[in-house]
Parts: sequence; C-alpha cells; structure tokens
Amino acid sequence: MAKLTVEEAYELKVGPNFQLADVDPSSTPGLSGKSSVDEAFNDLDDALDEEQEKLYANGRAGNENAGSVLLVLQGMDTAGKGGIIRHVIGKTMDLQGVHVKAFGRPTEEEAAHDFLWRFGPHLPEPGQISVFDRSHYEDVLVQRVKQLAPPEEIERRYGAIVEFENELAARGTRIIKVMPHISREYQAENLKERIENPEKHWKYNPGDIDDRKLWSQYMAAYQIAMTRTSTDVAPWYCVPSDNKKYCRTVVKTLMLEALQSLQLEWPKADFDPEMELARLAQS
Amino acid sequence: MAKLTVEEAYELKVGPNFQLADVDPSSTPGLSGKSSVDEAFNDLDDALDEEQEKLYANGRAGNENAGSVLLVLQGMDTAGKGGIIRHVIGKTMDLQGVHVKAFGRPTEEEAAHDFLWRFGPHLPEPGQISVFDRSHYEDVLVQRVKQLAPPEEIERRYGAIVEFENELAARGTRIIKVMPHISREYQAENLKERIENPEKHWKYNPGDIDDRKLWSQYMAAYQIAMTRTSTDVAPWYCVPSDNKKYCRTVVKTLMLEALQSLQLEWPKADFDPEMELARLAQS
Repeated sequence: MAKLTVEEAYELKVGPNFQLADVDPSSTPGLSGKSSVDEAFNDLDDALDEEQEKLYANGRAGNENAGSVLLVLQGMDTAGKGGIIRHVIGKTMDLQGVHVKAFGRPTEEEAAHDFLWRFGPHLPEPGQISVFDRSHYEDVLVQRVKQLAPPEEIERRYGAIVEFENELAARGTRIIKVMPHISREYQAENLKERIENPEKHWKYNPGDIDDRKLWSQYMAAYQIAMTRTSTDVAPWYCVPSDNKKYCRTVVKTLMLEALQSLQLEWPKADFDPEMELARLAQS
Repeated sequence: MAKLTVEEAYELKVGPNFQLADVDPSSTPGLSGKSSVDEAFNDLDDALDEEQEKLYANGRAGNENAGSVLLVLQGMDTAGKGGIIRHVIGKTMDLQGVHVKAFGRPTEEEAAHDFLWRFGPHLPEPGQISVFDRSHYEDVLVQRVKQLAPPEEIERRYGAIVEFENELAARGTRIIKVMPHISREYQAENLKERIENPEKHWKYNPGDIDDRKLWSQYMAAYQIAMTRTSTDVAPWYCVPSDNKKYCRTVVKTLMLEALQSLQLEWPKADFDPEMELARLAQS
C-alpha cells in the first residue's frame, strides 16, 4: 500500500534557503505514479475522521485546552484551493467542527482597519478547524505585486503576520500554511477549460489573465512572503500541484499530523456509566 | 439498480390526517433489504454534487433569484441528525455553499426576544443551503412538553411559525423539514452504546434519559407540531430511521428534488469566450 509519510510531507516545508524556482510543480515527491497517489490519498480518511471528531468532542465538552487548527490556502488562480476544501475537509470531517471562510477584496469597512482586523472573527475556537481560502497573505502578495500599499507598509506586514501567528500558536492553534504550486502551463490548461466549458464560466474572471501576466512578479512575492513568514509554529509548505490529488494527499497528511500533535483523549465521562445504565434499564 | 423515487419519498409527507403512531420506525418504504438501501444511498451523490454547485455558482455570480434551501432536522436524541449532516451534506456538497447551525438552549439575550428572533441570521442567502440541527420547533416541542412557556404562547407559536416559513418560501427558499423517527427500543440501544463506549461518552447527557421518560409526551407534541405546520411550501417528512441509511437516502432524494425545482441554469458568461481564449493564448 503506497503511503506518503509525514517526513516526506515535511520535505515540502519552506526553510531559510527555500527557492520557489527549484520546485517542480509537476513532481510528486514521495510518491511515484498515479496508482501510488490514489492509494495514498484514500489511506488517510478514517484516521482524519476520527481525529477531527475527537477534537470536536473536546470542544463540545468544554475543554478550553482542546486546541484548534488553522489551514491557510494561498495560491494562484486554478491552483486547487477549492478542491482541497471539498476533498480533504468536506469528505472526511464533521461540518459542525469546521469553519470555511473565503476572503475576497476587503470591504470599505475592512480597509479602514489594520489589515489583520478582518481575520480575527474567523480564527478557530478550541475544538474547531478554520480554513482560509485566501488569507492575510493577500496583503503581501497581490498588494505588493499591484502596489496597492506603500513599500514600507508591505515591509511592516511580514513582521506583523509573524507576530499575529505566534500569538495564535501560543493560544493552542496549530497552523498549516499551504501554497498549492502549479506551473504556468497547467494554469493555461485550467483557464482554457473554464473559458470553454459553460459549466465553469462562473469560475472565470477576465482579471485572471491580468494576474497571469504578472506571474513572475507573483512568484517573487510568494518567494519573499513564504521565506519571511515560515516559522516553526506556522510553517509554509510549497506543494507541487499539477497533480491535484498529490497536493490533497499532502494536505491530508499535514492535517492528520497537526490533529495528532494535539494529543487529545476522548473527553472523560461527567457521569457514572453504571448508574446511567441502570437508569436506562428502568426507563 | 435500486432507487428511491421522489414519489416514494413524498409518501412520507405529513398531511392533515397524519398519525405519527402509524409510522413504523423500522420500515423502509420504497426499498426492501440492505442492499437496496445501500444502492439507493450511493445513487444520488453525483447529481447532488452538481445541483448544489450550480446553486452556489448562481449565488457567486450575484443572481439574486438563485433561490436557496433550508433543511430543518428535528428528532429525538440519537435519531441521526448528525449523521445526516455528515453523510448527506458533508460528503456531497461544497462547504462554501453550506451553513450548518446547531441550536441549543436559548441564551439569555435570545430568550429576551421573540422565539423566532435567533433563527433569522442563519437563514440561507441566495445560492446557499442552511441546515438547522434542531430549530424553531424546539419552541413547540421541548417547551410544550416541559411547560417552559404558557399554553397560550405555545398555541400562538404554531401560527407564527407557519407565517415565518411562508415568508421565507415567498423569498425563494425551498424548505424541507425532516423528523428522523426512531423507535424507543432503538433509542435504548443507541444510548447504551453511548454510555458504554468511552469514544461516545461526549455525546451522552444524563438529561437524555429524562427526555426518554417523556417519550409519549414528546410524540404527542411532534404529532401536533407536524400536522399544524406541514404546509405546501414547508412540508414535514416523518422518516423511519431505525435504518439510518434509509433516512439519509430519503433526505438526499428530497434535497435533490428541492435543488432541481429551482430550475437553475449555469450562470451566463459575463465575458466573450473567443476574446478570452485569444487573450489567454497571448498571455
């Protein structure tokens, strides 16, 4: 049975010497061939299901130290963020313990506050998992590429993000940040499909081509953002994603490891089982 | 290939002459045998996936007339509400288009308002599906059985609920109300499992036995609530649920029919595909 090990997934972690240009989006490190990816993908569902239920159970039982998980997804158009949410989160987890939030352009009210302000209400409570579809990294990616904020403000944000994530981690949140990394050629195929297939028109926006023309500027912005904000408590993973299923397998592996690292037990009974069985028998 | 037809699901609709006592919780109307239930259960996933995506797409495209769906789940403890959310909603739908909300005892602030006040913020926007795990029916079920409100206030609520749901339907929301109906014997098995299995302790509450002792009063309250509030635009379905998979199959069938009844098309392109293909080729 093909499996992706946690150690193999950790190889995708962004360290100080990380070079985005060296990552081949079409590779599948740790797994070779379609059938290996398929097997590894399906291998993790039962464990994920159980670990997430245990986390949720602890939250429901009022365990303030249950911990929580934040999954940040940040990638180019058509990189597969939606598919991760659907196939990794939706299919294996209890929706009642999951909060998915997509972040678009800031509203006027949001833009009037510090850039981190709008994310606070969507951070996970103990026992919960939050998934950000785009995130606070927009503020150092698109905003840098399109010069929507002054350079010194962009500069300030890297540190502010690290501080924000450090505090979050200190409060018991496991943070996983994933850049599903696709090639420019693969994006062209995906965009072509969205333009040609009427069932996918709603996913296409002519602005996607404008962003595509800025590909190398975006890659430079990702390179800087990921190296400056990948920390022990909130690491970035740059995941080759021309094979979408490979990327989803990596995310499952990282999510499972994050959940297991919380080392949760099932909540203790706040009742006497013998007595309750007797009450049940008499009821 | 065994299938549950929409007509068969409609047979479970609560009409003026409905008698809850006549419904056998262990029956599986329209399907016979485990393999039939299994087949019918799996039959609907692709269609549900597609229809929900179309609804979500319309919402995203800003179609104010997209419509929406509200699924109300109201049943006795261990009847399988959580399983419906997990297996019918989570596994087939895009989480970004779904809002699941569990309602517990009202907070002090909520209790200070009219009983319907707290549900408003959780109703679905165009393009969305909301699922209520318990609902505004608590206010005519537990509140009636335990006399938590004066009889004339309970009496007033049936009409208020019908009016509330009529308005919601008039704004384009398809409403499906499901009572997963289990037998008292099956509940005993489920509670026993929750008391004996440490992984399920968190789902058990000694108060469940107190409610169980009021079984016949609850059934009477359901009988009244369902017959008085089952309308053309917001029908109740009393679904035999000792076979959980049967119940989930019925809910899938009803959800699919509700989504199809919105008669949505994929959103029209707000761009010229030929021009965009040319732009893509040059990018």
